[in-house]
Amino acid sequence: MKHSSFHNTNNPLDPEEFRRQGHMIIDFLADYYLNIEKYPVLSQVEPGYLRKRLPESTPYNPESIETILQDVQDHILPGVTHWQSPSYFAYFPSTGSIAGFLGEMLSTGFNVVGFNWISSPAATELESIVMDWLGEMLQLPKSFLFSGNGGGVLQGTTCEAILCTLVAARDQMLRRIGSQNMGKLVVYGSDQTHCSLQKAARIAGINPSNFRAIKTTKRTSFSLSPDSLRSAICEDIDAGLIPLFLCATVGTTSTTAIDPIGSLSDVAKDYGLWLHVDAAYAGSVCICPEFRHVIDGVEGANSFSLNAHKWFLTTLDCCCLWVKDPSALIKSLSTNPEYLKNKATDSRQVVDYKDWQLTLSRRFRSLKLWFVLRNYGVAKLRDFLRSHVNMAKLFEGFVTSDKRFEVVVPRSFAVVCFRVLSPGMGKAASYANGTTTNEASTNELNRKLLESINKSGLVFMTHSVVGGVFVMRFAVGATLVEEKHVITAWKVVQEHANAILISENY
Amino acid sequence: MKHSSFHNTNNPLDPEEFRRQGHMIIDFLADYYLNIEKYPVLSQVEPGYLRKRLPESTPYNPESIETILQDVQDHILPGVTHWQSPSYFAYFPSTGSIAGFLGEMLSTGFNVVGFNWISSPAATELESIVMDWLGEMLQLPKSFLFSGNGGGVLQGTTCEAILCTLVAARDQMLRRIGSQNMGKLVVYGSDQTHCSLQKAARIAGINPSNFRAIKTTKRTSFSLSPDSLRSAICEDIDAGLIPLFLCATVGTTSTTAIDPIGSLSDVAKDYGLWLHVDAAYAGSVCICPEFRHVIDGVEGANSFSLNAHKWFLTTLDCCCLWVKDPSALIKSLSTNPEYLKNKATDSRQVVDYKDWQLTLSRRFRSLKLWFVLRNYGVAKLRDFLRSHVNMAKLFEGFVTSDKRFEVVVPRSFAVVCFRVLSPGMGKAASYANGTTTNEASTNELNRKLLESINKSGLVFMTHSVVGGVFVMRFAVGATLVEEKHVITAWKVVQEHANAILISENY
Repeated sequence: MKHSSFHNTNNPLDPEEFRRQGHMIIDFLADYYLNIEKYPVLSQVEPGYLRKRLPESTPYNPESIETILQDVQDHILPGVTHWQSPSYFAYFPSTGSIAGFLGEMLSTGFNVVGFNWISSPAATELESIVMDWLGEMLQLPKSFLFSGNGGGVLQGTTCEAILCTLVAARDQMLRRIGSQNMGKLVVYGSDQTHCSLQKAARIAGINPSNFRAIKTTKRTSFSLSPDSLRSAICEDIDAGLIPLFLCATVGTTSTTAIDPIGSLSDVAKDYGLWLHVDAAYAGSVCICPEFRHVIDGVEGANSFSLNAHKWFLTTLDCCCLWVKDPSALIKSLSTNPEYLKNKATDSRQVVDYKDWQLTLSRRFRSLKLWFVLRNYGVAKLRDFLRSHVNMAKLFEGFVTSDKRFEVVVPRSFAVVCFRVLSPGMGKAASYANGTTTNEASTNELNRKLLESINKSGLVFMTHSVVGGVFVMRFAVGATLVEEKHVITAWKVVQEHANAILISENY
Repeated sequence: MKHSSFHNTNNPLDPEEFRRQGHMIIDFLADYYLNIEKYPVLSQVEPGYLRKRLPESTPYNPESIETILQDVQDHILPGVTHWQSPSYFAYFPSTGSIAGFLGEMLSTGFNVVGFNWISSPAATELESIVMDWLGEMLQLPKSFLFSGNGGGVLQGTTCEAILCTLVAARDQMLRRIGSQNMGKLVVYGSDQTHCSLQKAARIAGINPSNFRAIKTTKRTSFSLSPDSLRSAICEDIDAGLIPLFLCATVGTTSTTAIDPIGSLSDVAKDYGLWLHVDAAYAGSVCICPEFRHVIDGVEGANSFSLNAHKWFLTTLDCCCLWVKDPSALIKSLSTNPEYLKNKATDSRQVVDYKDWQLTLSRRFRSLKLWFVLRNYGVAKLRDFLRSHVNMAKLFEGFVTSDKRFEVVVPRSFAVVCFRVLSPGMGKAASYANGTTTNEASTNELNRKLLESINKSGLVFMTHSVVGGVFVMRFAVGATLVEEKHVITAWKVVQEHANAILISENY
């Protein structure tokens, strides 16, 4: 250890101890990634496993980092589901990367609380800059960028982004119609919209009976129909209610369905709704010109968000939210306590991001996004996303070439929704049957198959149910995934299907 | 590089590249801590400084980490306010530590999204365990612990904790009295309560005119009087309103005032209010037996929170929230989409923390708290907190021994609220005068003094205004702080006071 004579090595932030232990953890994590394929992807522990293994209370005396790391290896890792495993195909990806990790480390190391500009100017300014950078990469209209009097902010998750914009929309409306009308406001999504919309509406005090999950159908690949939306709105207006907010989704959670932003925004405009576009998953891929069309019409929206921590190499949490009218957010979310007053704020030349989000304290999240953008650049980021789409196509090909299986809804991005068919259930006729006895037993068959696959620990996928059909979701996106993992995954699916079809006497 | 032949070094998570670049960043941060005293504590940049220095858009081709780190050094660090500097005495501390940093790194490295148990059982189970551990250290009543059918959860910040509990309280009340009474609900705090309460009330749709900031006075050191609360409640009831929620504070932001939890909980009980105790700052020090009395009466509260990222060595963000009745939270915040359904949840043997918080996605925050608890142990954590209190006492002694200065409100923890007096303004009479012309000019003098001190870059303090008096806050708590820094800080205060008193012809 250098310099140790100058430092109080008992200090919990002693630089040389930091160096020694920091290197130790880097090696621990590098070895973890090297060996990640040796772990079952889905943790196989039973509920309550950890309480049996850990002491009942905090130790009185210090324990060494070496001891704690050994416990991480022995007791924590068995309970970890390995989202970074190349054989992880569940939910949506949570793409880590070296650059994202490094940015997060710097942010943690500086440990600034960037509630307003003065508390750490770089934290605010870098955030505004990278939000403009990313907005341009997505070809967002200038009205969403700071350079066009809109602006972007990094939130933790889409749940926060939706709640913030909903509250802004609510207050903007109530300023016009009076707060006594709060109980009449209506929020719209589809039956495929993420549950965070309904939760946000509940939190914001929207009358629970004024939440509309408009039905979608397989015929339109589960996308929200502008006609259905218009009918729902008209019905509500006829009933004396006041349409407030529409959340359209680009890349729904179940099947990555794409709501038609352009025509939905026309409806929203006709009735004065705030339109938020939730592109949590699929927004990232819009940096590739061939995918950009899925957000065509975004110029008609009031706000737009995507999760960089999903499919953009930026570790959790990092939700990018752009708004056309920051003042609507600020009117609802600003606070101005004496202890935060300062000349920079008074000058109105700076952004104080505390007024753009739910919380006061905020981490220096832009560092990791800046690292990702610069260290990979536009070119490599596009390659990376395309490689996942191509691997999903590969898997889709496997499914379609095995006549025991079917792709349930057309693939749009890097998620394949598929299922095994009950023997004798013709591929063509399969879906049209609806929820017959046959359909129910096919659902059960797929449920069993998925459970069996996940229990193997070799692959982890999750499911959804759309239009009454249980589908397995194969979501390509783990940073370490390569073609060989997709090929192996398909073999695992086939082997478990073989075993179940035989044992169940199909 | 070992193993490089087995790995695709182009992969953004290549283990050996991770190792190389990870070590690089550790050294960068270790050197940062070594040199931290060379930087001005408060950043001295002008608004807009960074846009002038960075390119206008994302690079098309990758840039090396070495290049980016050089830019961090050259362009980011000048815009950082150094919260980890030992001469940082502003706001409240944001205490980093090696153990907290290591835990955050592991969490970032695993990058799991722990919304429910199955998504990574260790993330949920470790959180429940450490919340019980810390709850016991604080001698919280068993009814707040999992072992007593309550439970704890890690939120990002107190703002989230308050919003969650407020929404739970609101919905619990509305289930009883009907949602048409939403506009009648009243929320109570004091004029010293953190602004996050009013913001949470606004977000939750509480009628803005039904927010009560009850006046406090210097006579009771700005603590909330149970009698004033009772009067306010009775007035509201007489007006046909419905008291809902009280937020009491232990360690207010301006002066670390302590609301009397016990007698306030009696009032809350009499009128059926949900009582939340916000001990964001001072909660940590309650692990020291000599301070525990400040939360006496907490058994009468419904919920209790503290920010481990403030004064408990756990890097931002980490707010610990305990509730007696988790089902109240869950009823308001649960979602149950098909894609998250799983056998563990169905068995009701597990906690799904997504239903205890605003957002769905959540980081593995318990790792850092677990590292802090184990690596320092109860003994060292107490020593650490006590050392800060002692350094604040030292500073308080300096202030009282210089008759040009006064301590404005009695010190309770590690924050000293003080000011310089206008010459001729007798110490004893100073405060009683109220906001006379003299008082206004004293405020102006202190404002100038603080600005001058902060501009020096040697020390960073912030201010508040209480009872019309501008106070400088000296908040001891940076992890690296030692007595010598407190001594230097006092010298800086004196020097700048000397200069101003002379130049202003006092």
